[in-house]
Amino acid sequence: MKTLLHQNDPALAALLNPSSVAIIGASDNPDKIGGRPVYYMKKHGYTGKIYPVNPTRDVIQGEKSWRSVQDLPEVPELVIIAVAGQAAVDSVKACSELGIPAAIVITAGFSETGAQGKILQDRLTGLAAAQGMRIVGPNSQGLANFGNGAIACFSTLFLEIEPGDGPVSVISQSGGMSAMIYGLLRNRGIGVRHVHATGNEADITVGQLAMASLHDPDIRLILMYLESLQNADELAAVAALAKRRGVVLIAVKAGHSPAGAQAAASHTGALANQDSTINAFFEQHGILRARDPHQLVRYAEFILRSPLPAGNQTVIVSNSGASCVLAADAAEDHGLRVAPLSAGTQADLSMHLSSFATTRNPVDITAALLSNNRLFGQVLSCIGHDPKADSFVIDIPVAGRGYDVSAFAQDAENFVSDSKKPVVVVAWQPAVAMAFREKNIPVFDDEEQAMSTLAAARRFQTGLARTIADWSAPAGKPIALGKAGSTLSEADTLDALASAGMAVVDYIRCTDAHHAVAYWQSCKRPVVVKACSEKRPHKSEHGLVALALDSAAKIHEAFDNQSAMLEKLGITDPCWLVAPMEKGLFELAAGVHMDPVFGPVIMAGTGGKYIEALQDVFVLLPPFTVGDVMDKLRALQIAPLLHGVRGDPAADIQAFAELVVALGKFAISNAAGIRSIDINPILVRPQGLGVIAVDALIELS
Amino acid sequence: MKTLLHQNDPALAALLNPSSVAIIGASDNPDKIGGRPVYYMKKHGYTGKIYPVNPTRDVIQGEKSWRSVQDLPEVPELVIIAVAGQAAVDSVKACSELGIPAAIVITAGFSETGAQGKILQDRLTGLAAAQGMRIVGPNSQGLANFGNGAIACFSTLFLEIEPGDGPVSVISQSGGMSAMIYGLLRNRGIGVRHVHATGNEADITVGQLAMASLHDPDIRLILMYLESLQNADELAAVAALAKRRGVVLIAVKAGHSPAGAQAAASHTGALANQDSTINAFFEQHGILRARDPHQLVRYAEFILRSPLPAGNQTVIVSNSGASCVLAADAAEDHGLRVAPLSAGTQADLSMHLSSFATTRNPVDITAALLSNNRLFGQVLSCIGHDPKADSFVIDIPVAGRGYDVSAFAQDAENFVSDSKKPVVVVAWQPAVAMAFREKNIPVFDDEEQAMSTLAAARRFQTGLARTIADWSAPAGKPIALGKAGSTLSEADTLDALASAGMAVVDYIRCTDAHHAVAYWQSCKRPVVVKACSEKRPHKSEHGLVALALDSAAKIHEAFDNQSAMLEKLGITDPCWLVAPMEKGLFELAAGVHMDPVFGPVIMAGTGGKYIEALQDVFVLLPPFTVGDVMDKLRALQIAPLLHGVRGDPAADIQAFAELVVALGKFAISNAAGIRSIDINPILVRPQGLGVIAVDALIELS
Repeated sequence: MKTLLHQNDPALAALLNPSSVAIIGASDNPDKIGGRPVYYMKKHGYTGKIYPVNPTRDVIQGEKSWRSVQDLPEVPELVIIAVAGQAAVDSVKACSELGIPAAIVITAGFSETGAQGKILQDRLTGLAAAQGMRIVGPNSQGLANFGNGAIACFSTLFLEIEPGDGPVSVISQSGGMSAMIYGLLRNRGIGVRHVHATGNEADITVGQLAMASLHDPDIRLILMYLESLQNADELAAVAALAKRRGVVLIAVKAGHSPAGAQAAASHTGALANQDSTINAFFEQHGILRARDPHQLVRYAEFILRSPLPAGNQTVIVSNSGASCVLAADAAEDHGLRVAPLSAGTQADLSMHLSSFATTRNPVDITAALLSNNRLFGQVLSCIGHDPKADSFVIDIPVAGRGYDVSAFAQDAENFVSDSKKPVVVVAWQPAVAMAFREKNIPVFDDEEQAMSTLAAARRFQTGLARTIADWSAPAGKPIALGKAGSTLSEADTLDALASAGMAVVDYIRCTDAHHAVAYWQSCKRPVVVKACSEKRPHKSEHGLVALALDSAAKIHEAFDNQSAMLEKLGITDPCWLVAPMEKGLFELAAGVHMDPVFGPVIMAGTGGKYIEALQDVFVLLPPFTVGDVMDKLRALQIAPLLHGVRGDPAADIQAFAELVVALGKFAISNAAGIRSIDINPILVRPQGLGVIAVDALIELS
Repeated sequence: MKTLLHQNDPALAALLNPSSVAIIGASDNPDKIGGRPVYYMKKHGYTGKIYPVNPTRDVIQGEKSWRSVQDLPEVPELVIIAVAGQAAVDSVKACSELGIPAAIVITAGFSETGAQGKILQDRLTGLAAAQGMRIVGPNSQGLANFGNGAIACFSTLFLEIEPGDGPVSVISQSGGMSAMIYGLLRNRGIGVRHVHATGNEADITVGQLAMASLHDPDIRLILMYLESLQNADELAAVAALAKRRGVVLIAVKAGHSPAGAQAAASHTGALANQDSTINAFFEQHGILRARDPHQLVRYAEFILRSPLPAGNQTVIVSNSGASCVLAADAAEDHGLRVAPLSAGTQADLSMHLSSFATTRNPVDITAALLSNNRLFGQVLSCIGHDPKADSFVIDIPVAGRGYDVSAFAQDAENFVSDSKKPVVVVAWQPAVAMAFREKNIPVFDDEEQAMSTLAAARRFQTGLARTIADWSAPAGKPIALGKAGSTLSEADTLDALASAGMAVVDYIRCTDAHHAVAYWQSCKRPVVVKACSEKRPHKSEHGLVALALDSAAKIHEAFDNQSAMLEKLGITDPCWLVAPMEKGLFELAAGVHMDPVFGPVIMAGTGGKYIEALQDVFVLLPPFTVGDVMDKLRALQIAPLLHGVRGDPAADIQAFAELVVALGKFAISNAAGIRSIDINPILVRPQGLGVIAVDALIELS
């Protein structure tokens, strides 16, 4: 069982801020894997002790070399292991027996190579655990802390791109991605303190190093690259602490497609996560998700250099009418709105812009800027106080000779400190981009990048502002369980759901047609007759459902047909469920599946036969409120229908949301016994008339 | 009426290849708008005569200056007009009277400024047209031909980014975008010959300049930036000629969102086009659409440097396992497939890759590449002949010290010439990107860009390969029309559609309930009763439709209720439509609207009450085949349902497609009289049982 790193965990200090580092397999050649950490630590001013260990050398890169860790004058706080195969295992044993708190195993050839490597890896981690030594890796590129020069890492990229300390921590399961993210950040002039790669995660995980770097008070932003998430609680704890400290977490979770997930499994042996569940988890815990490292770094630039937008309305300013059009397109593509400017703002603008320029948003300064460079600042000051504006996009597609770009950047800086709202720049010309970046304003290559970043920041802000539901006392009692791996009958399922407060169809169980006919007569409506069996959960495919029966003859016929089918299927204990034929405006559905990492995952959305085809569903992780469900319903494709179209009344989505909350609480209370719950369809009736679940199935775990 | 430029049009030669250029408003200062074309033409080796016209100077930039165009020693072939307001109009008059074939009016302040400017512009174009002089602009940045140095343009960007001739023509309604696209192309090392901006398009359009540059035999690629498309035939003719000559057209059509369209209207006074119609038009004519100039230029790099992919299967190779995952994700996000490698390919790979590396696609070369740089070429040669591979993506996220990138690029070049299939590289490090670009291999910053480009190229290739339907003899006869602006009654609409071969519901018209009851008795099924009126096309909202009536009493009741409602609505000539209640597996819909630019636009997709909410529809422009409609149906959200789910049979989509083709032909035959056609729902029955239109409306123009 992996444990969280805490502030008082000696491994934490050892990994991120070691007072001494031994390198087993140290090399005099700084281009060798065992040579580069020595080279980096010396170059980047590491002030602790460096102990190269190499039995064949006396001096390594100017430092005394030692024959073995046992020969060292002290027990080092951290050891880097860069020797191959069995030698790595032996080194781990020796180090752990010395009482070294933590080791970074750079060596590859363990679980990532298959079953044989996994055995070797298990031996290695077993030896370490026996003595309480923590392990990063194996197959790790290493850890780097540019705050103190402890660069226990062999990435080539620190040679190519000059490090610069800053408030950012990069923590990755992949060494290549940790380096790439570092490089992309540095290219944008962003300082980076921590660059850590966990490799095979035999012990220490991305979540644990994120927790560790959260204890560095200078860190404002933690960027993660994940291919697999196996400990949800750990990351949830990181997210909770980050939120309290005002630190932002942004994560790439790669492998979101089937082919990507398969590639991830080949790469790190990672177990696949359901992507919609990952989204729900990140949303629940206020982690901003980026598609890939490039988007991650764009988000990072924005988060570091801008407040979050308080709303969806953006104002666009450009010296090109065409860029105004492109920016407006991109804004709407990403769900932002091109804010209408107030009459006051427009009047102000008209005093500065030429008589024939439009004063509407987007604001086209036109080529008039070329003859009057002061126009830029004047226009900004006009729009800065517009009450509708939540963010500003300055789009400068071409600014060559005649444009005073440094004055524009200065104007923009003044504008930012004045407006206190997000301001981003779109510029592809390096000189223009650099001028604005120097003033600490986020810059994007194109409108799509700018608007998608603003939109993501807005969603993130909305998520942070959300009140998390309190389910400390879920209502439902655990149900009496059947055999593991089996399904409850439909009737038992409906009973269980009803007992948890969900509205289910009224029904009777019976074993013959006469009973059913009597029921039909008493309820005075057409009825549905379903042959029930725990062995045949999928009734319609076998003709075991007869709908809208409105005569005794039809009921008898249905029983006869279904009995014949049951006999053919070899079902000997027939039981029937008879219910009145219910109607609704729509068929929705809700369900639960138990995720091995995340626990109960609640799904709801468009039901009936459209469920698979439209995939118009959403996913929530407990706890959540009725309001959360209503928000998700509003984002469904069929949302416009729920409000009533073509003379139809609005649907009772409040009642549906209450059912979904009840389902979630029921799933939590019965998490141990249930594998999945599937309620489809749920008939949604007009507002005030509620919902009714007419078919449901519980699969036991 | 604008006319196409033809090869023998003197204006064509004048604009793109003038033997002499006069500049009215020429300046000695190369940074002034009237000075820059003189400067550029001298700098870029223009060999024709340059005639600066400026009454206040004797010499301009070393050239003799002339008092007026009348004083010139010859009638120049092209004139650039850079004087303001009325002086521009006077210059146009003088030039046209001299017989100058073409003028570029750089001056702004015309229709883009409002009604007043439009009057001035009309005067200007009127004067030119009277003498047969063609006009580019006004408000144009000008035309530039780097093939002959005729740079009749004032863009600053040609100062910043060194021109280089090449097979590309950039033609834009916006001057800023023409420059920006030029700059982005040059940054990718792509040579550009033509850079033209049409400004207000008072006369010459992007389509006409595209046609003109098509006559330059060196041009292989025409890139267009459009905010409005007002002459579909013109662009269709360009596309047809381009296809014959193997020239590729790629276009940005900006203003695709409501806010973008409004911004375009402010920018150029452009009339909005329906975006789905633009897509259908581009698809029909084999024009590749890009979202924005950045995507345009990525597509351009691919088209110039790669064959088109023959299929959807791609093979990914990387030195980073994480990039393998990201690339696989991006491939599937864009509809590509990560091709399974053949057993032969995998066996070949296993001879080169380390024993524990996977031989599946994506192929992870791993950091083993660092110790053996030859692995790169070896892996490529293994996968090059895989029968499943339609394209290859080489992803190199990090390649610093120890990586022989120039050898990789050489290996890749050999691979390209060997495989004859598309190969693209993902690299964000400038040195890596440059090494591959020098070998003429398209390079992208990230996986998303690479995969979206490959996917777009694949769609484009599929479109080019498609056989365009032949509708030279559409079947339907024009219908007898009612009053313009009115609607046909439902019964008349159904008759008209039936006469054009569409399957419509069987029905009778009647004026009293007795007739309806008799009909119900004869057809032995429940019936529908609808009160029909040309004045009330939307019946359900007014309770004028009664469904599933299965007794004489119910039919009488429906007539009574509807009569009362008709009276309330003031309808005095009631008529009823009575039809059997039909059933289908699904409700689809089809329709037509007459577009002022594109003519009849045919829409089809999910119908019933889902039509507005799901927006699950497609658009086709005539002519199209049943196969084209079937292809579009397969891309609908509800497509999986059409094939039959949960025991349902497959739907008769062939019959639906036939109805849509019949509808398209009917629309063409009756284009003059019809504003719109709306058929919803169309009930689709099981395969072989056809479709049936049960409600329809024709609006007359």
